Amino acid sequence: LVTVDGLVEGVDFDRGYCAPGDVGWKSVAVNLSDIAAMGGVPRYCVVMLALPPDTEVSWVEDFLTGVLEACARWDVDLVGGDLSSAPQISVTVTAIGTAPGLVIARSGASPGDVICITGELGASAGGLTALQHGLGDDPRFQGLVARHLRPEARVEAGLALASSGVTSMIDISDGLGLDLARLLRAGGVGCSIDPDKVPVAAGLTDLHEAVPDAPEPSRLALSGGEDFELLWTVPPGDLARARESCEQTGLAATAIGEVTSGRRTLGALDLDEPEEDLGWDHLLAR
Amino acid sequence: LVTVDGLVEGVDFDRGYCAPGDVGWKSVAVNLSDIAAMGGVPRYCVVMLALPPDTEVSWVEDFLTGVLEACARWDVDLVGGDLSSAPQISVTVTAIGTAPGLVIARSGASPGDVICITGELGASAGGLTALQHGLGDDPRFQGLVARHLRPEARVEAGLALASSGVTSMIDISDGLGLDLARLLRAGGVGCSIDPDKVPVAAGLTDLHEAVPDAPEPSRLALSGGEDFELLWTVPPGDLARARESCEQTGLAATAIGEVTSGRRTLGALDLDEPEEDLGWDHLLAR
Repeated sequence: LVTVDGLVEGVDFDRGYCAPGDVGWKSVAVNLSDIAAMGGVPRYCVVMLALPPDTEVSWVEDFLTGVLEACARWDVDLVGGDLSSAPQISVTVTAIGTAPGLVIARSGASPGDVICITGELGASAGGLTALQHGLGDDPRFQGLVARHLRPEARVEAGLALASSGVTSMIDISDGLGLDLARLLRAGGVGCSIDPDKVPVAAGLTDLHEAVPDAPEPSRLALSGGEDFELLWTVPPGDLARARESCEQTGLAATAIGEVTSGRRTLGALDLDEPEEDLGWDHLLAR
Repeated sequence: LVTVDGLVEGVDFDRGYCAPGDVGWKSVAVNLSDIAAMGGVPRYCVVMLALPPDTEVSWVEDFLTGVLEACARWDVDLVGGDLSSAPQISVTVTAIGTAPGLVIARSGASPGDVICITGELGASAGGLTALQHGLGDDPRFQGLVARHLRPEARVEAGLALASSGVTSMIDISDGLGLDLARLLRAGGVGCSIDPDKVPVAAGLTDLHEAVPDAPEPSRLALSGGEDFELLWTVPPGDLARARESCEQTGLAATAIGEVTSGRRTLGALDLDEPEEDLGWDHLLAR
């Protein structure tokens, strides 16, 4: 399994509130999340770092510390890299993994399968909102902020699910709406989702009270990106087994709807709209 | 074998004279060159492309055509990629390869080994000089320009050399001086080089006549980067066999000196100077 993903300063992160170690950690984690969503075990990574020539050496050292912390967390070896100059910082990571069992693709869902997610949604977008409003140090939002700056790749859960009968899987990197649309389109299927069943991250209600112009908690959960939870489908007969195997890794598993042969919708959202109309940026800007 | 290398607009290429297909080709070839220098066979690659949002779709299509042309040239499969936005175009490629026999490291040279290079040097820097002086369409410099825009990775020669007794190998990406310094430092050895034996690319004399302020041909050959020829060492008893195996791939092999236990010098250049004083940029700017 091979995956590549990058972070660009000013687009994917802001040095004003992302410490260099956070950028390093996240650049690795987002790639391992892709391996996790295929039921794989990440093994190696390489890092390309482009920097303005006046970047402080300490920034690079702290960045590398974050990279190595993420590698240690998931037992991945950093086996190479490259440095270049650029007007702003940009990081590209390639991760290489193996699949001990079945490789789970996006495309395997069939009508009748149950649609499930791991964990809770909206935490990362909530953390970003807190940071953007100068609330990064507020103890109420530490959990949200940590989920934004140091996301977890659901490697253990992905492995457990891959051997428990799941038929398709994807990680939620760009928001439930967009990644659900990708999963359903890949399988040529529709869905019936109960938006009220989508677990909302703790802390988002407090955040909405502290920042009245922040989106509603449910909106952050349905359209906030970068939670890196797993979205998967499973035949009803395998649901209990899959849910149990996921929960044994310490992560909740929640059924939010069903695969159908009908339309693709998430609440009022038509998932067959162009991708640029489904991402969290667009919804948050409304 | 895994390698990563990137090209950043304004640093590594200029859209004024690099067509999108050339950027695509080169971004793959520079990575395959690293695989070639280890005696490997490139197999797969992934491409991360970051673009300003107003980039024309045709640029991306032509870029991809160049990527696929390079992949076809060396029988490599493009197996994935990612897109992001950035203020300028930047491309990062990771190539994955296998080693059918010995993996040749940079560090294996011993005193007494002969130091050799494939092909001729200075062509890419000459091509860049021609492009920068508006001579890109001059028929006299087509060969040089092609070597700059569409470099070859010496995969066949690297494979042949790896099974012919070579003790260390590196590709010349940043100029003979800098890459020779890396090879010798890795092996903890010195050298005795005859700069007059370094083969100078055809066309550089004409270029110097057409552009009087261009560097001397010999200076472009010793310090011009991006030729992607292979620099290697071999015991004297294996020299004839290695040279023959290289030439059977259609590429000249030239002995330029000897590994010693003494100092590291290339003509008047002290190769133990800091790297930033050895690269072609610095020398060309003198």
